[in-house]
Amino acid sequence: MTIEAHEAGSNFRRIPYGMVGGGEGAFIGAVHRIAARIDDRFELVAGALSSEAERSKRSGQAIGIAAARCYRSYQEMAQQEAARPNGIEAVVIVTPNYLHVPIAKAFLEVGIHVICDKPLAAHLAETGGLTELVKAKSCLFAVTYNYSGYPLIRHAREVITNGELGKIRVVQAEYPQDWLSEKLEDTGQKQASWRTDPNQAGGGGCLGDIGTHAFHLACFVSGLMPVSLLADLNSFVDGRQLDDNVHVLLRFEGGAKGMLWASQVAPGNENGLRLRIYGDKAGLSWSQENPNYLTFSPLGEPSHVLGRGGPGLTSAAERVTRIPPGHPEGYLEGFATIYREVADAIEAKHNGKDQPDDVMFPDLEAGLQGMRFVDAVLRSHKNGGVWTSLNS
Amino acid sequence: MTIEAHEAGSNFRRIPYGMVGGGEGAFIGAVHRIAARIDDRFELVAGALSSEAERSKRSGQAIGIAAARCYRSYQEMAQQEAARPNGIEAVVIVTPNYLHVPIAKAFLEVGIHVICDKPLAAHLAETGGLTELVKAKSCLFAVTYNYSGYPLIRHAREVITNGELGKIRVVQAEYPQDWLSEKLEDTGQKQASWRTDPNQAGGGGCLGDIGTHAFHLACFVSGLMPVSLLADLNSFVDGRQLDDNVHVLLRFEGGAKGMLWASQVAPGNENGLRLRIYGDKAGLSWSQENPNYLTFSPLGEPSHVLGRGGPGLTSAAERVTRIPPGHPEGYLEGFATIYREVADAIEAKHNGKDQPDDVMFPDLEAGLQGMRFVDAVLRSHKNGGVWTSLNS
Amino acid sequence: MTIEAHEAGSNFRRIPYGMVGGGEGAFIGAVHRIAARIDDRFELVAGALSSEAERSKRSGQAIGIAAARCYRSYQEMAQQEAARPNGIEAVVIVTPNYLHVPIAKAFLEVGIHVICDKPLAAHLAETGGLTELVKAKSCLFAVTYNYSGYPLIRHAREVITNGELGKIRVVQAEYPQDWLSEKLEDTGQKQASWRTDPNQAGGGGCLGDIGTHAFHLACFVSGLMPVSLLADLNSFVDGRQLDDNVHVLLRFEGGAKGMLWASQVAPGNENGLRLRIYGDKAGLSWSQENPNYLTFSPLGEPSHVLGRGGPGLTSAAERVTRIPPGHPEGYLEGFATIYREVADAIEAKHNGKDQPDDVMFPDLEAGLQGMRFVDAVLRSHKNGGVWTSLNS
Amino acid sequence: MTIEAHEAGSNFRRIPYGMVGGGEGAFIGAVHRIAARIDDRFELVAGALSSEAERSKRSGQAIGIAAARCYRSYQEMAQQEAARPNGIEAVVIVTPNYLHVPIAKAFLEVGIHVICDKPLAAHLAETGGLTELVKAKSCLFAVTYNYSGYPLIRHAREVITNGELGKIRVVQAEYPQDWLSEKLEDTGQKQASWRTDPNQAGGGGCLGDIGTHAFHLACFVSGLMPVSLLADLNSFVDGRQLDDNVHVLLRFEGGAKGMLWASQVAPGNENGLRLRIYGDKAGLSWSQENPNYLTFSPLGEPSHVLGRGGPGLTSAAERVTRIPPGHPEGYLEGFATIYREVADAIEAKHNGKDQPDDVMFPDLEAGLQGMRFVDAVLRSHKNGGVWTSLNS
Repeated sequence: MTIEAHEAGSNFRRIPYGMVGGGEGAFIGAVHRIAARIDDRFELVAGALSSEAERSKRSGQAIGIAAARCYRSYQEMAQQEAARPNGIEAVVIVTPNYLHVPIAKAFLEVGIHVICDKPLAAHLAETGGLTELVKAKSCLFAVTYNYSGYPLIRHAREVITNGELGKIRVVQAEYPQDWLSEKLEDTGQKQASWRTDPNQAGGGGCLGDIGTHAFHLACFVSGLMPVSLLADLNSFVDGRQLDDNVHVLLRFEGGAKGMLWASQVAPGNENGLRLRIYGDKAGLSWSQENPNYLTFSPLGEPSHVLGRGGPGLTSAAERVTRIPPGHPEGYLEGFATIYREVADAIEAKHNGKDQPDDVMFPDLEAGLQGMRFVDAVLRSHKNGGVWTSLNS
Repeated sequence: MTIEAHEAGSNFRRIPYGMVGGGEGAFIGAVHRIAARIDDRFELVAGALSSEAERSKRSGQAIGIAAARCYRSYQEMAQQEAARPNGIEAVVIVTPNYLHVPIAKAFLEVGIHVICDKPLAAHLAETGGLTELVKAKSCLFAVTYNYSGYPLIRHAREVITNGELGKIRVVQAEYPQDWLSEKLEDTGQKQASWRTDPNQAGGGGCLGDIGTHAFHLACFVSGLMPVSLLADLNSFVDGRQLDDNVHVLLRFEGGAKGMLWASQVAPGNENGLRLRIYGDKAGLSWSQENPNYLTFSPLGEPSHVLGRGGPGLTSAAERVTRIPPGHPEGYLEGFATIYREVADAIEAKHNGKDQPDDVMFPDLEAGLQGMRFVDAVLRSHKNGGVWTSLNS
Repeated sequence: MTIEAHEAGSNFRRIPYGMVGGGEGAFIGAVHRIAARIDDRFELVAGALSSEAERSKRSGQAIGIAAARCYRSYQEMAQQEAARPNGIEAVVIVTPNYLHVPIAKAFLEVGIHVICDKPLAAHLAETGGLTELVKAKSCLFAVTYNYSGYPLIRHAREVITNGELGKIRVVQAEYPQDWLSEKLEDTGQKQASWRTDPNQAGGGGCLGDIGTHAFHLACFVSGLMPVSLLADLNSFVDGRQLDDNVHVLLRFEGGAKGMLWASQVAPGNENGLRLRIYGDKAGLSWSQENPNYLTFSPLGEPSHVLGRGGPGLTSAAERVTRIPPGHPEGYLEGFATIYREVADAIEAKHNGKDQPDDVMFPDLEAGLQGMRFVDAVLRSHKNGGVWTSLNS
Repeated sequence: MTIEAHEAGSNFRRIPYGMVGGGEGAFIGAVHRIAARIDDRFELVAGALSSEAERSKRSGQAIGIAAARCYRSYQEMAQQEAARPNGIEAVVIVTPNYLHVPIAKAFLEVGIHVICDKPLAAHLAETGGLTELVKAKSCLFAVTYNYSGYPLIRHAREVITNGELGKIRVVQAEYPQDWLSEKLEDTGQKQASWRTDPNQAGGGGCLGDIGTHAFHLACFVSGLMPVSLLADLNSFVDGRQLDDNVHVLLRFEGGAKGMLWASQVAPGNENGLRLRIYGDKAGLSWSQENPNYLTFSPLGEPSHVLGRGGPGLTSAAERVTRIPPGHPEGYLEGFATIYREVADAIEAKHNGKDQPDDVMFPDLEAGLQGMRFVDAVLRSHKNGGVWTSLNS
């Protein structure tokens, strides 16, 4: 366990950061802020929390940002913070998807690290030049596929890397929710409105919002990328423009096969991200709604129930475990692990050291893979549900 | 609850039946015999339990069949039983798939009702003429898709029929097992041997053995038939001739979409048949390994956990419930329900009455639908994984 | 697995048996009859199913007993069956508790084996002379503590015997139900009426009905008997004469401690018999409502989930397993195992052989222990909740 | 949901606080610090983290406390902080039990609010004068029975207050762990050492450490206090001085009965706090290891599974819910809720307002009740396991 991992370090400091988006009425902004606080490695000192100037200021002050650093626009924030002696070192982007890339570029240009919510962009085409820019500016870029921060997910990835599942045969990923079973976007609910609006969300609805999470997790844990896929999308709610149910078949490199189901119209499912992976030696099963346990099933033996912090876990899991077994860590702690690892990477860079080996926050490439997945799914579906390469 | 339902009746009798297949070393034959005994509506009096004469006799006597009615072949059995004054009224067919149709025809020809294990045949093409023959002989024909006998499955079907789920949008069916993760057929294990042999099992391996169960259950409960499907099959175990993993996308009449996964190479799964159906008003979830409970989730309300025999159940469930809530009924009882309903239908016919309304054992048409499913899956896969009509 | 265990035997026969009690409106009689049929080792040929002559005959014929063997009283049945050349070899007693002992004695006197429902008697004092009579007549006596027939319970007992839990420290047994949360006995419901009537049930209500089950299971599995106990009883429903909630502390031989809770007024509990046992090396947990699984937790290792029929099970479990893992066996199959073992014992006696080693149906001594438990609980409670020896 | 509840407020500020105990090698100190950060209402500015001066300084600086406010003793800290213009307003006490009261008194004397870990003291006798002192100084006093901060626990309490369970009959509380199954205290493990040492922990081992949690939760949710109890304690591990297994029977005011089991020697149990309460109208069940769900069972209806943040929850639960359903909140968030409520109370006092109605952090009286429970259990056990009044 690594409670407040910085305690081990000799020099305590909090990394100053700013936030774009996440003002009043937003949801994910506050989640990021809590996640950033849990391990006490960051300090929020600047913000452009709303595209409306007055609201941005009011929202910022309400959460402790000095009035002078509550900006009217992200452009202003990037310029002024870059010019300050003690300006922010990182920016967190929690706006609707279509703004992710322009905001990221504005901060990268002035050498500020980026922590961007998922998906990386509204459309794959928008992401051109990002890789080069990140490299040119020597910046860190994290995409908050937060579910990869759960200790048991780290353990699952590790045992697969170690060969304990043998050769992977089948990957079953699913992510059902029910909150868009009715036309919530017509009620003015802010979260529903932008997520179902192609102009703000991009080409994928449920696909971009949660399908990308399931996709990332499947690839992160299995260590495999699909070479092709086939998709059948639906917009079950009348008048909805974007998909609300996603069925995908996957063919992975090396011959494994997979299914991915994401839905926002499946009553009784709150946030049912679930992953099952089967190899020729063992299988494993994990569900996000009870994330502190993992079932590991070696062929020909009884299944083992592994608990976070308990016996039988790899160091990859222990490293991101804060409290003892049976004391459940949840969504915010998993999210906080991404922040902790970004902090480790920033500190290493700050101190002129090599990036730590054990840091595995989702980076720009993970974000780009997600966008290639979205793009391939949309192409497959548009063509009537045909096998489609991820890389074309 | 209907404990020993015949008790209510005035005239007690046991229907005399015979069995083809199910001798020494077999598995499913004994299951059928227990199922037939549970409600005490049948009496086993004849058998051709093995294609080997001596073994047939020894197997038959060991389970109480008189020596004179242990036959050397199913043909002999059909002829002689039909000729007896008190011959069998029904035959149970529990052989490998490729023998199902010829045996069924032999008994139908002499007017004996048929209870046939699934799938109906090795190949769809073999089933020609069966419908006509059944009609001509005025016989009953049951296919033992036994999972449809579980009380909670009956309840699920009923609430969907009643409109409690609203318009169905998504059907997720899965049936993972792990017992063929290694090449068990090379060890001489009898169950594995014929199920992986195209000559005995037919075109589908895992597909025919358990995929058809998942398919039947999805259709039985949802009340929907797919119009087209798309399949990706695998034989993950080296040298295996038939599929051991089945991925299918389904497009149902009326616009619902579905996924079906069947696998016999998923370590940690014993017999994981699971069904989830979502409509615009509610969703439900059921798992065969804990079959006495069903989760019903009306949109916007907490999920309800319905227990067999407990409050909130429909009469369709109560009719096939034997014992009080919390006293688990299992696989054999669900199987026995199919037998009970066949008995009810035989008695009605025997007494010149109309078939009872509430009998819903899977009939010949259900068996044929299963074969059309197998056939469409094989065609889709052979063509590289393309959308394929069930009816072409 | 031992599907229809008699198949292995050379000489097939069904043991003729009769039943006292269990006529129209009864519940447990039909359960016994199904249990007796499942493995096809018994044949019901005689009955005194009701204390009312006409009803006895009607009930008997409705389930296939010849009119001549539907008796007006158990005394008549004992006499006439004993006198027949092919009379019954065993009697099943499924009456209210206060009749158990007189009926048992009537049949023992004429040399007929007894299978008696639990508890053995209404009061401990009634059981005097039974042990001697059973011995004198060389009869078998079984008490249907049916839950001890579950395969995972057999496994649990075996691993404790093998020392895999180490020295037992704590035994937690519980058996909550909710069906008597209201005054059901006032509605004329037959099951509720006699169970809450001291004249028919005896000194214990919930205590005798289900507390004895929990007690038997705790002792059967742990291999330990308590030396003293302390009880606090309640009749929460106004006007109810017998207890409906039972709290007991247990001090076992060897120093282990235990708690036993039985209740019939705990809403949401159907038939929640649950057992947890902890030693210095490992712990285990089992719940009757999902009886095919057992959690085994070796200290310092992840918990193992053992499934009936699956890997890691002892021969004691396999011997009473009928069907493969993942195909749930339920309450009736567990009950049937008691019948199968009684059949094995009867056949051994019939054939002049020694009793088989592996037969472990609950015998008269188990029934007497249950009555000593009831008696000690009642004495402890009457004295205000004080520590009370089981053997005084 | 109330993400970062202060956002709604007009004036943002963080309450300055200090900590006594919780230095290097400690566990619960870091938990308190994270809990204090989650809702961003507190700022750690002073500490006496170790009784060793150098270690105290090193530990303090490592977590961001200025060197000048890393004190050598709690006495020094109390005096100097009280004298500062912007000194701490609250102190968090996370030392072994025997130090709780003297430290609390030192800070209360100088008018600083106290947040004290449980149990309140090593022995009931130590707590004399606390109530008067708290009153005299007009200070707030919180005892971190953190499990009462879970949203579903708040909901459970609320529905019982609302009468939805009817008259309470049975309360079953349990809290098994396994981490002291062997003699861990001999290995030098710091947590085990002081918890098993009567000089540091007091009269109760497992009893004080976790038994008090179970007791508090049972009383907090049921709204009932026991009038008497009976206890049987054990020290199963050879040579251990304090209890490691606790069996208690409870008799509540109004006639309800209860059982409480706490154990640290039950292999397979990590942190198994579980509460079940049954009334004449409904029952409920909750388990800390999957804390986001509560089963609510109205008599005669199917059980409802209530999920944190989902439909059917009371405002008492919603008020302490941070993120949407299906995104699990865990132990740290529940703990943080206690901190949030203390912050609300401190702010109210700070601003001269009345204490908010909806604040329900465990106060001094809750801490005293816990000590009366410990004391009564020890007296009952010492007298051989007899019924003992809580108030004598």
